[in-house]
Amino acid sequence: MNKKIGIQGIKGSFHHLVAMDYYHKDVEVMEHLSFQELAQKLAAKESDEAVMAIENSIAGSILPNYALIDEYNLSVVGEHYTPVNMNLMALKGQEIADIKKVFSHPMALLQCKQFFKQYPHIKLIEDADTAEAAKRIHNEGLKKVAAVASPAAAEMYDLEILAREIHTIKSNATRFLVLGTEPKKPNGEKLDKASIKFDLKSERGSLVSVLNILRDCYLDMTKIQSLPIIDEPWKYSFFVDVTFERPQDFERAIDVLKLMTEGLRIFGIYKNNLS
Amino acid sequence: MNKKIGIQGIKGSFHHLVAMDYYHKDVEVMEHLSFQELAQKLAAKESDEAVMAIENSIAGSILPNYALIDEYNLSVVGEHYTPVNMNLMALKGQEIADIKKVFSHPMALLQCKQFFKQYPHIKLIEDADTAEAAKRIHNEGLKKVAAVASPAAAEMYDLEILAREIHTIKSNATRFLVLGTEPKKPNGEKLDKASIKFDLKSERGSLVSVLNILRDCYLDMTKIQSLPIIDEPWKYSFFVDVTFERPQDFERAIDVLKLMTEGLRIFGIYKNNLS
Repeated sequence: MNKKIGIQGIKGSFHHLVAMDYYHKDVEVMEHLSFQELAQKLAAKESDEAVMAIENSIAGSILPNYALIDEYNLSVVGEHYTPVNMNLMALKGQEIADIKKVFSHPMALLQCKQFFKQYPHIKLIEDADTAEAAKRIHNEGLKKVAAVASPAAAEMYDLEILAREIHTIKSNATRFLVLGTEPKKPNGEKLDKASIKFDLKSERGSLVSVLNILRDCYLDMTKIQSLPIIDEPWKYSFFVDVTFERPQDFERAIDVLKLMTEGLRIFGIYKNNLS
Repeated sequence: MNKKIGIQGIKGSFHHLVAMDYYHKDVEVMEHLSFQELAQKLAAKESDEAVMAIENSIAGSILPNYALIDEYNLSVVGEHYTPVNMNLMALKGQEIADIKKVFSHPMALLQCKQFFKQYPHIKLIEDADTAEAAKRIHNEGLKKVAAVASPAAAEMYDLEILAREIHTIKSNATRFLVLGTEPKKPNGEKLDKASIKFDLKSERGSLVSVLNILRDCYLDMTKIQSLPIIDEPWKYSFFVDVTFERPQDFERAIDVLKLMTEGLRIFGIYKNNLS
């Protein structure tokens, strides 16, 4: 039986492409309307694993998704990077000059900002999902309307691509987390990356002391992001990703962090996929 | 003549409330459909200053807004914190049981997630702006539809509040930047906070070295956020906010950072408004 993989959005979405890419084999995708639903259904074991967008080079991290991982007690078991590939698509037989409105996800529209500057007659409208917009154009036979989505979405919903690769920054990538209900067990492969969270008072140097520990334990930091803690002025949560050569170095750092920080949470230990 | 202040969204939006609060006097607000338009019109001096949401305790920083400050060469001249205050509102004479759809900004819907769990019959739909949804209900006389917005929006668009303060975390606040076209000149008041950006290779310890400098110069860090730089693997931009007692401490740190980092940018030096 094929593994069931939760995705945010519908078939043809970037989450769908990531699921296909990451698992290199037939999996059954479960479409979800929101990240919350994705997390909920995975926790309820209605899916076996799930892929979840977490970060891109324009907006940084989607921090609310860490809150969902926490709330539903999920584990990060992997990561995957997918190049951004945005395309303008509409019902067949139309040209860009015919298009009055373009629907897509806000992040997709942001990534194509420069392209649309040359078409001031087109109104950009934010939508829940890239592929969803393509599907609606197909299902409702909407003319003079286009979507910004993946080439797979154009094929799936029988739309014509009016302009290819219209995103401004050509080598942009989105990072996805692969989630499970249990921590990843090493299975021959090397687990050399971890995502953690901890809380600190912003006393002068408290963060520096923690980062000194990470450095002394030979950990490289690939992400850091602070989030003010509600109700506790000058206290912050820090979301940090680290890579390491030897798992015991990570364990050593964690032992010290348990003493130096509050609310330590290891979201998962997994294989680094950034080449 | 009243000062012209650019806001994102329309009258009754949280940006509007911030403009009223921050300036403590009559200002003329200029409504903008997007952050991009807000930045563009300010750079063109069609407005005198502008307020721009930058951070909240759920999603962290809106990093694309820093890119706009950069692109249009604007300066941060102040900051303002506004409590979140979300309310469910609809045309008069209806009850929550009558409501089928709720429109609002995605962040507003996220802040009220718990409240809506008790009303599974209500469909949540993302909209460009909180006040915009309220205005549309009023203008088009939409029944069975509600908006999530500020009490000011309810008053302005003649809607009835069906439920007050429906946001989950009661003491949540949103942080706004006040923007101008020139760096802030000290005018009797103490400028004790700055927002900066710099780029670093993620070599082990490179960030720690920089943070050690900040600490040695008596700066307190109230925010840090890394953003991967496109096209340059393992190189990151860091967005950092610091507070300080003496401007010369900040200047000293900047002198060192110029040597230790690349692409140093000071977005602005302003008065810390976090009490």
